[in-house]
Amino acid sequence: MSEIENKERREFLAKAAVAGVAIGAGTNIFGAANKPNIACKGWAAFDESGELRPWRFERRAVGDDDILIEVMATSICHSDIHTELGHWGKQIYPQVPGHEIVGLVREVGKNVKNFKIGDRAGVGCMVDNTDIATAGSEEQYSPNTIFTYGHPYPKEPTGISQGGYSDYFVVNSHFAIHIPNELSWDEAAPLMCAGITTYSPIMKYMKKGDNVAIIGIGGLGHLGIKIAIAKGAEVTAFTTTKSKIKDIKSWGAKAVLVKSSDDLAPFRAKFDFALSTIPYEFEMEPYIAMVKPFGNFTLVGMPINFSQKTQTLNLASTKVNLNASLIGGMKETAEMAEFCAKAGVRPNIVKITGEQINQAWRDVVAKRARYRFVIDPKSF
Amino acid sequence: MSEIENKERREFLAKAAVAGVAIGAGTNIFGAANKPNIACKGWAAFDESGELRPWRFERRAVGDDDILIEVMATSICHSDIHTELGHWGKQIYPQVPGHEIVGLVREVGKNVKNFKIGDRAGVGCMVDNTDIATAGSEEQYSPNTIFTYGHPYPKEPTGISQGGYSDYFVVNSHFAIHIPNELSWDEAAPLMCAGITTYSPIMKYMKKGDNVAIIGIGGLGHLGIKIAIAKGAEVTAFTTTKSKIKDIKSWGAKAVLVKSSDDLAPFRAKFDFALSTIPYEFEMEPYIAMVKPFGNFTLVGMPINFSQKTQTLNLASTKVNLNASLIGGMKETAEMAEFCAKAGVRPNIVKITGEQINQAWRDVVAKRARYRFVIDPKSF
Repeated sequence: MSEIENKERREFLAKAAVAGVAIGAGTNIFGAANKPNIACKGWAAFDESGELRPWRFERRAVGDDDILIEVMATSICHSDIHTELGHWGKQIYPQVPGHEIVGLVREVGKNVKNFKIGDRAGVGCMVDNTDIATAGSEEQYSPNTIFTYGHPYPKEPTGISQGGYSDYFVVNSHFAIHIPNELSWDEAAPLMCAGITTYSPIMKYMKKGDNVAIIGIGGLGHLGIKIAIAKGAEVTAFTTTKSKIKDIKSWGAKAVLVKSSDDLAPFRAKFDFALSTIPYEFEMEPYIAMVKPFGNFTLVGMPINFSQKTQTLNLASTKVNLNASLIGGMKETAEMAEFCAKAGVRPNIVKITGEQINQAWRDVVAKRARYRFVIDPKSF
Repeated sequence: MSEIENKERREFLAKAAVAGVAIGAGTNIFGAANKPNIACKGWAAFDESGELRPWRFERRAVGDDDILIEVMATSICHSDIHTELGHWGKQIYPQVPGHEIVGLVREVGKNVKNFKIGDRAGVGCMVDNTDIATAGSEEQYSPNTIFTYGHPYPKEPTGISQGGYSDYFVVNSHFAIHIPNELSWDEAAPLMCAGITTYSPIMKYMKKGDNVAIIGIGGLGHLGIKIAIAKGAEVTAFTTTKSKIKDIKSWGAKAVLVKSSDDLAPFRAKFDFALSTIPYEFEMEPYIAMVKPFGNFTLVGMPINFSQKTQTLNLASTKVNLNASLIGGMKETAEMAEFCAKAGVRPNIVKITGEQINQAWRDVVAKRARYRFVIDPKSF
């Protein structure tokens, strides 16, 4: 979900900006020898305006550990918007967002063992690691992980990682998973961030039969509901958008329309676990108070500057653990995709073209997405 | 530690202010029939200035469930200062602060079974509960608990609970513990809040052999160090005050002088548990990052308005549980006093008179306390 790992990374990003420009001379000085870069068509941000435009750019040639993916579907995450608007730190532009990417493998490097040409592959929030041997099974916490867009990345002609709003994608094969055949391209794409971001804390903090609250019912929240129910929870969904109530019920959850904190009071200490997907700062206290003592309240939505006020007396009197979760490891991502495929967990999607991306971003911010916009790269 | 349990309580307090004045007519309309109120000498706040003055006032006569304590020592907690300055909500004045109170039992009500005249008794942050049958073993979380000062309390002639900076004290005997003979009065007083406030989360979140960080070395912190060490932890203490380093080492802990967050970087993911006693808002992130994944970072210091910023990406990348702890239950408080008595855990104290209280408060705020000011009520 987040491209920016920590303050250190932001500092690194700032320092690397100059280097990025120097490296981004259009020639592939780090890629496989004698192989041309990959010419790509994508949609990119050019500044902090939040307006994207078509952009032709180059990706590195497929290296020995890489695969080339012909992107069949790529979807819009609220993180894309936060990042390009500079909400999470200064960015290097032009930058192609997108970290929910699925498609067909068209080329494999000579060291690649886990993919062959023609396989169905998916890529999420990570694309590489500069010291893969030390990355462990929770690669998102490795200081050497390269996130999918906007991350300083000397291997790339543009000096930064370029995301998935693009017709082709090159990735270290460790950071791709196999997409089960049960999932269509459009169904699979949103799982690559929204799916794993909700699946991982649900697996960590929830057990079968638990009474669970999912707070904020957008791209992440609607998948959180479906995954938690599929994992055997009793789910209550909290939304501020009346028109989502019917959908929520259709997925098998109870629905609560939140107009004020009074609507939360009846749920005091009722839930074993609560997952908040709200991507902006909010008054957490009445939500935290819904969790039983020593239960977990987990944030996966990340606000502007990652800044969130908390109320220490509320924490003390509720005895709730406040924590947050990033995405999930690659092994867990593959497991999540298998689980969703078998359990019938599918995102609700709206298919759009490149030209519709800017309107879709505005819809996401205005809570009008139902529930994930999936972009067709053939329209680029 | 905190007199104000939650927002609802603050609202109740505001509403009760008028009632409090009406009730506070000096006659004991709620106490035992025909028994005179107890004339007391204390030091009270009269406004939000933070300056206390001597005050003669009345406590209720000893009721059937009450004991009367001749106060032998009462100590200064940072909560006293926060409360009287209005940092945690509007107060009713005059108000006698103090919730670390020990002394001799001089009278017992007819229903009292756990104390007899001449016993050594201690009172902490709670004095009563309007529905004791439902209070449970963690009375501090009961909505019906009356905290030791400033709490609307119709039983009292002044309409609010009046704290321990006083020569005599009346309390429901459920909320008093026996003070072990090994502890002097002056040693025992600080245990009643600072002791239990640190002991309770240490018992909850720490196990023998753990690597523990204690952050902020004042009244709470210095007892936290001693209790954690006595419970078998390896303790590292973090202070911003150079002159405390020698003391910290003398208690058997490692000491770290914090001048900037750089001083914390070497401790990344090193601690099983961290306890923060800092009583003001602070930059938590570099401290949180010192805790191992899935470890607990527990706040017992409470800032102005209980407001504390947190950084969601830091929470996600560290995987640390942020939580807070209030005080402890009465049973646990008695256990804590026994433990400290037997294990040789003693606070470092400075004895003062009533006239020295105002200077002592300034010293506490300026981090000059070493480490608990204990007031002699005989000086009132």
